[in-house]
Amino acid sequence: MNCIIAQSGGPTSVINASVYGLVKENFNLEVFDNVYGGLNGIQGILEKKIINLSSMNKDELEAFKNTPSSGLGSCRYKLKDFSENEYEYIKLIKILKELDIKAFFYVGGNDSMDTTAKLSKYAKKKNLDIKFIGIPKTIDNDLVLTDHTPGFGSAAKFIATATLETYLDSTVYMDNGIFIIEAMGRDTGWLAASAALAQINGKPCADFIYLPESEFSITDFLNDVRKTFKEKNHVYIVASEGLRDCTGKFITQSAYSAHDKFGHAQLGGVGEYLKNLIMDAGITKRVKALELGVMQRCAMHCASKTDLDEAIMVGAAAIRAAAEGKSGYMVSIKRETNSPYKSSTVLVDANEIANKIKHFPKEWINKKGNHITVEAINYLRPLIADNVLLDTEDLLPKYKVFSR
Amino acid sequence: MNCIIAQSGGPTSVINASVYGLVKENFNLEVFDNVYGGLNGIQGILEKKIINLSSMNKDELEAFKNTPSSGLGSCRYKLKDFSENEYEYIKLIKILKELDIKAFFYVGGNDSMDTTAKLSKYAKKKNLDIKFIGIPKTIDNDLVLTDHTPGFGSAAKFIATATLETYLDSTVYMDNGIFIIEAMGRDTGWLAASAALAQINGKPCADFIYLPESEFSITDFLNDVRKTFKEKNHVYIVASEGLRDCTGKFITQSAYSAHDKFGHAQLGGVGEYLKNLIMDAGITKRVKALELGVMQRCAMHCASKTDLDEAIMVGAAAIRAAAEGKSGYMVSIKRETNSPYKSSTVLVDANEIANKIKHFPKEWINKKGNHITVEAINYLRPLIADNVLLDTEDLLPKYKVFSR
Repeated sequence: MNCIIAQSGGPTSVINASVYGLVKENFNLEVFDNVYGGLNGIQGILEKKIINLSSMNKDELEAFKNTPSSGLGSCRYKLKDFSENEYEYIKLIKILKELDIKAFFYVGGNDSMDTTAKLSKYAKKKNLDIKFIGIPKTIDNDLVLTDHTPGFGSAAKFIATATLETYLDSTVYMDNGIFIIEAMGRDTGWLAASAALAQINGKPCADFIYLPESEFSITDFLNDVRKTFKEKNHVYIVASEGLRDCTGKFITQSAYSAHDKFGHAQLGGVGEYLKNLIMDAGITKRVKALELGVMQRCAMHCASKTDLDEAIMVGAAAIRAAAEGKSGYMVSIKRETNSPYKSSTVLVDANEIANKIKHFPKEWINKKGNHITVEAINYLRPLIADNVLLDTEDLLPKYKVFSR
Repeated sequence: MNCIIAQSGGPTSVINASVYGLVKENFNLEVFDNVYGGLNGIQGILEKKIINLSSMNKDELEAFKNTPSSGLGSCRYKLKDFSENEYEYIKLIKILKELDIKAFFYVGGNDSMDTTAKLSKYAKKKNLDIKFIGIPKTIDNDLVLTDHTPGFGSAAKFIATATLETYLDSTVYMDNGIFIIEAMGRDTGWLAASAALAQINGKPCADFIYLPESEFSITDFLNDVRKTFKEKNHVYIVASEGLRDCTGKFITQSAYSAHDKFGHAQLGGVGEYLKNLIMDAGITKRVKALELGVMQRCAMHCASKTDLDEAIMVGAAAIRAAAEGKSGYMVSIKRETNSPYKSSTVLVDANEIANKIKHFPKEWINKKGNHITVEAINYLRPLIADNVLLDTEDLLPKYKVFSR
């Protein structure tokens, strides 16, 4: 009897560590004869793109643990409800049966939990002996019913480190300008907030942190920036890509219309937009904007050891859940204690996770809506703990890549 | 009798390690009673912004060694020739004499070597007993008469690591698009070239690397990209920000006129420009461009140990040069052997460095002008060797910051 694991949605630095944790725990507990890997998620499995992960040797498995980005490939494929399109369900189940697969593990975000819940429901309805378990993963940290998501801690650590280092870079001259760093997060501010972890002598490097959870006001923003620039001849700003105005529209969308009047097309993201606001307001022309981009989800060289360990932990817990006959659940992370930090896993109904978003709490944003509170920092800090020592090959990190 | 060290121009990750090397070697050899630090280069020294670096304790000094970005502050101040404006020379010498300063060390690029050469010439003409020594520093690796410059190796390592990791990120889907990474280097291609160090199974991740030393042809570029995209459904492109067309103009400058026809202003750099070229040519709409930006010069968390050690080495050699009564020289790096890699220092005339640029050798670019040769990779590889273990504070790298 065998099982299969696949990955879906956007990559993270530690997504393969969950595969590692699952393969390793299966090796220890001898639950399944083989762990198969579905390439490119459900989409690839439906095309029978399947490999045998149990045939990896120890070295390959260890290297795979530390390899960033969905090593099994990913997809953006959303299963329809089986009442709408049962064909895909029938096709998938046939493929799983051919390989004697009794458990299906899906590593992903809330779309993948939707898939997990639907497949589990279908299997139950059809009395099929196949378990479906979700394993959380997303740098966005926006899944409900889990303290946080694997992948977030490493992204947070990269953002905090980049903030610390670019802060130093942006303050070397006597006439320093304004520096803006743009973090990912179209719907939630978790990633941008983690920049607050970068501190010098106990004070955050960032003068201002703007999150999607707080309505963005151009007037307040320009007042903030003008005042601080007058005081310090320098301003360090962190902005989430998902900033919205009072109507709930992305501010970069409003920008299109605003700038069209002058015949300009607004390219780039929030950072460029804020840069233009500051320059147009005549505060200074010395403004730099840096978009951290996909590095936030693949900078394994700057990963959090805690995040890596928890990614392994949720993978291992998934095997045990299947062994216990559970189906339709996601392995969730519970924070046991904060100091010293300790976490464990619990199972939550995948259906309760699907299509929901966990926002950055309003009470963790300061009154002015331009920074975060100490409570938020206390929540974030342990998640970036400790460094991962990577093996090297040709003097760069050694990563294991499957040909797909 | 005392000495002073100051920093000038753009920061690097290891620029403070040269200050550390100098302070440490002075401590060992007891050449000067105090090592002063001039804040914000010549500009700050002229305003008497000077601190005493010899009063740092061991912990502070060790933390400062590993702190990225000009810790003493920087400036973009170019001294005029003394025949044009002797006033500044007189003012500076007066300040140095007041502090009994017998040696002045300037850490910088070719502008700083120009300053070093001018001051040394002035001191000789006026029979002043003050030595002027240059210490090389630039991520651009564009100084002549040195095998390479401190700061370059760490930038190269960050670029190569980012290339490896974003390559993995850009290949997870079945329908992968095109990824473009933009490296710094307005005049030279050294930084962009170092992306070639990122390899998987012995093959560079980058399909194409375009450098300023090779004329950029839009037609050839689009042919390259179209062909590879058809073959692999994915293209990974590295571009130097300084790409030029056949007339020697920056391609992003040409872009302004090209796009004005349609009423669009071209924002962003080379990456965005190439992205638009690809989309306009109808190759695919799935194109992402990432500008690595200032992270290239401050990502100490990804520094090269070899680079750090050499930055220390040139600082230490500068003290010895002053002790030997030399003036008007820059400490240069000589590659003794490549495998195993070994380097030493030699003194070269600062005047020979000033205002010159070392280009990436044409013979290290392939015939098609879209990649680099094995010889180039052999030159680059040892410079990124080994990792720097950083002390941490609040779970992030511990950096020492002077209030300026």
